[in-house]
Amino acid sequence: MNGAHALVRTLADCGVTACFANPGTSEMHLVSALDGESRIRSVLCLFEGVATGAADGFARMAGFPAMTLLHLGPGLLNGGANLHNARRAFSPSIQVVGDHASGHAQFDAPLASDIAAVAGSLAQWVGRAENAAQCGPMAALAFQKSLDLPGGASVLILPADAAWSESGAPCPPLEIAPRTVVTEAAIMAAAQALRAAAKPVLLIGGAALTQAGLASAARLETWGVRVMTDTFPARQARGAGVFAPARMQYFSEMAQADLAGADLMVLLGARAPVAFFAYPDKPASPIPPGCQTLALGGVEVDGVRALEALAAAMQAPVAGAAAPAASFAPPSGPLSVQDVAISLARHMPEGAIIADDGVTSSLPAFALTAGAAPHDWLCLTGGAIGMGMPLAIGAAIAEPARKVICLSGDGAGMYTPQALWTMAREGLDITVIVFANRSYRILNIELARTGAGSTGAGSPGLVAGRMLSLDGPALDWVQLAQAQGLPARRCERAEDFDAALAAFLACPGPKLIEAMV
Amino acid sequence: MNGAHALVRTLADCGVTACFANPGTSEMHLVSALDGESRIRSVLCLFEGVATGAADGFARMAGFPAMTLLHLGPGLLNGGANLHNARRAFSPSIQVVGDHASGHAQFDAPLASDIAAVAGSLAQWVGRAENAAQCGPMAALAFQKSLDLPGGASVLILPADAAWSESGAPCPPLEIAPRTVVTEAAIMAAAQALRAAAKPVLLIGGAALTQAGLASAARLETWGVRVMTDTFPARQARGAGVFAPARMQYFSEMAQADLAGADLMVLLGARAPVAFFAYPDKPASPIPPGCQTLALGGVEVDGVRALEALAAAMQAPVAGAAAPAASFAPPSGPLSVQDVAISLARHMPEGAIIADDGVTSSLPAFALTAGAAPHDWLCLTGGAIGMGMPLAIGAAIAEPARKVICLSGDGAGMYTPQALWTMAREGLDITVIVFANRSYRILNIELARTGAGSTGAGSPGLVAGRMLSLDGPALDWVQLAQAQGLPARRCERAEDFDAALAAFLACPGPKLIEAMV
Repeated sequence: MNGAHALVRTLADCGVTACFANPGTSEMHLVSALDGESRIRSVLCLFEGVATGAADGFARMAGFPAMTLLHLGPGLLNGGANLHNARRAFSPSIQVVGDHASGHAQFDAPLASDIAAVAGSLAQWVGRAENAAQCGPMAALAFQKSLDLPGGASVLILPADAAWSESGAPCPPLEIAPRTVVTEAAIMAAAQALRAAAKPVLLIGGAALTQAGLASAARLETWGVRVMTDTFPARQARGAGVFAPARMQYFSEMAQADLAGADLMVLLGARAPVAFFAYPDKPASPIPPGCQTLALGGVEVDGVRALEALAAAMQAPVAGAAAPAASFAPPSGPLSVQDVAISLARHMPEGAIIADDGVTSSLPAFALTAGAAPHDWLCLTGGAIGMGMPLAIGAAIAEPARKVICLSGDGAGMYTPQALWTMAREGLDITVIVFANRSYRILNIELARTGAGSTGAGSPGLVAGRMLSLDGPALDWVQLAQAQGLPARRCERAEDFDAALAAFLACPGPKLIEAMV
Repeated sequence: MNGAHALVRTLADCGVTACFANPGTSEMHLVSALDGESRIRSVLCLFEGVATGAADGFARMAGFPAMTLLHLGPGLLNGGANLHNARRAFSPSIQVVGDHASGHAQFDAPLASDIAAVAGSLAQWVGRAENAAQCGPMAALAFQKSLDLPGGASVLILPADAAWSESGAPCPPLEIAPRTVVTEAAIMAAAQALRAAAKPVLLIGGAALTQAGLASAARLETWGVRVMTDTFPARQARGAGVFAPARMQYFSEMAQADLAGADLMVLLGARAPVAFFAYPDKPASPIPPGCQTLALGGVEVDGVRALEALAAAMQAPVAGAAAPAASFAPPSGPLSVQDVAISLARHMPEGAIIADDGVTSSLPAFALTAGAAPHDWLCLTGGAIGMGMPLAIGAAIAEPARKVICLSGDGAGMYTPQALWTMAREGLDITVIVFANRSYRILNIELARTGAGSTGAGSPGLVAGRMLSLDGPALDWVQLAQAQGLPARRCERAEDFDAALAAFLACPGPKLIEAMV
């Protein structure tokens, strides 16, 4: 058995079921090995950022790594931005990066580059199978290391000769470490601190944002603790009947005002919050002065169990707060982001998965769907826009029976528009909503906030204005989608959007709505 | 003056005239500074790979760096693959990468990453302006270092607080090192070796591939030296009246057969050739056994002067070989890559610039245009496809009076399709020809060559076949172009293509032809 087959067989034995691939010459034996492995679904992506983003979406929904197949250093670089986002989501994945045959390295051929240096900045673990015999064991190790807490990418570099040589053998799966359990003593200390505090806050993330975790968190909220989440959780269960914690506000001075008077912040499955960007004369931390923090652990902990224990220790009421079912009248008039939000809340089916790369435009959608049918919401964790459509692909492949809705800014969508083609090829049940505001809307806000406007008053000059605008020429997302095999339509009125969304969600398969907002 | 203004002013004083930008919040002060600098043309790119590829194209034509503006680590990663190609072209550039404010680094905010680690694998020089006072001097240094021989990217990391603080001042340009001169003694030794050899080869690259360099090379060819170029030169002057050296063949066993009997290879502006990829049981080097190599220097040398001196030392005839003007009858029938090549040879105007990312499909075009109107040809230097359309943007901005023709594979084009939007916005005089063969054609060849076919006979199985095909759904490049503001048409017959190309080249502005081959 050659090394490529040993690698693929090992990962399939570990339970890997999906490979997001953009192969090249040095990966031909891997492609061939995947051909013979019916347990792994191979999905071609036309750009590596789609592959890495899809692996992230898969991991967030499955709690389990997918593999990718990337072509040498440039393939890893192209996939790098969405690997960055995945790193911030602590998503496990196995990124198999082909490399030149070992003997070829000395020649510094055109495609040679320092793969390990780039991988080191993005991955939880980096390894290299030096020969075919190492392919099985290194694949098993890559799988295990991706699930090492807190979870992340394993980059496995595979020289072509290791892939094609015949001394490979599959390796059995290695043991996976369980989540860290928060000690009884730590729970008791937190309970005591929460009781002693005048205005306590509990910031939760990771596994605590599942329905089970949120049920215990709701009890603590009812007891009197203010429960909050990060601004951009990797995954959050939401909807009618599910507790909806307050969201940490994006701008730190607003978050600080929101937290005014808090004297204790307990962290569970979350790090201490920090401003997304620094600004002249604005605070880096939203935590108000004088507020103590108490960390029970990051995403590596068993947040469900810890919250249960904490609710018990606090003798919190059994009935927790939950979002009431919301109902909205059909929107009308020229389409706005609020109208999109209302239509989403009206029509998204139970079990929907929202892949959110909508930047400013999806804020109302998040707010107005708290009482919609129960669903999962996946946020942009690392700030590198261009994640939404790839993430939707991975989520749809991990959960084929569920409906995926991707919210994307038009600026964000243009980083990875090739994702639409993969949706069409694989017939994935994804409805993409592109918010067409024809600008980097957030940057128009940020220009003013940073005080960088050329007039000194935060308003852009002619050149700066053109750097923040996507108009001239206007992008046509309907054509971009149709060109890649997706049915698509443009909506300029709320009535149209509402009807189109209902119709699109009623039948399976990928499609796109360009929402002119 | 704030640091951002000091940086921009310094680069403008150095002579920088173009900035390919994809800014974010941390770059707002740079955007504002560019607003006030009329000497620099700011060009918005919707994806960073377009920006870095455009800077490469600019440098290849101008022999001078442009700047880019990238958003933190993810922006650099997105631009990384085309920076890899630019590194292999030795193209100078100044990549300005925004970073979090210095005080913010400690918080490991969502967009934080190890920018320097990634930059180190791609750049000739990496620096960081720690404060506003350093912005001017570091910008001048970045400019100088980009032109240090052999030439490459300078990555200048700019923390937001260095950009916004008011202690900046521009810095005057630093001295640029001249090209290395090959010594008289080395020339004499090479001349002696060439005279003594039975079947000498001279492999040239870099500046030697200008019209002036090729004129001297032609004299050596007439004398009896076989003059060759690398398979993928960064830039080569070509056309009727220009000497057309033989091209090193892509597959090393074919190159080795082509070189059979050669007993000396002199290298000037080029490294020893090496196979693009390694294959089982095929040679890594195309140089036949027993052939000696003699290196006169890489791209850092003054190749024009060295070739002149060598021709003089060899007392080579004054009249060198030159490509005769070729004339072709109009092609007809179902469109083939050969027909595209013939139409190109018929219609490309004098001074045309060809940005070639056509992979297998542009081989006939290269061959058949040797006798076309004089032009410059830019190759894919680093093997990371997705370079052609970005490269064309930079070339068009460096040479606004010349016509740019981009040859792109459909697979290659899908890595950076956003480049079309920038062409439309800037009204660049670029005609894009997409070879729509709806496959990674090269990989179908490579699968067989590597012996990876699942049947053992190099033919792909069902899954592998799908990994190499771009059909299902078919991409519609006409819609992809129109969606981004470009006139476009599809040609399925040679007569149509010939007429469309003639018509498109006759009027300025960007447009696209989808060539169904």
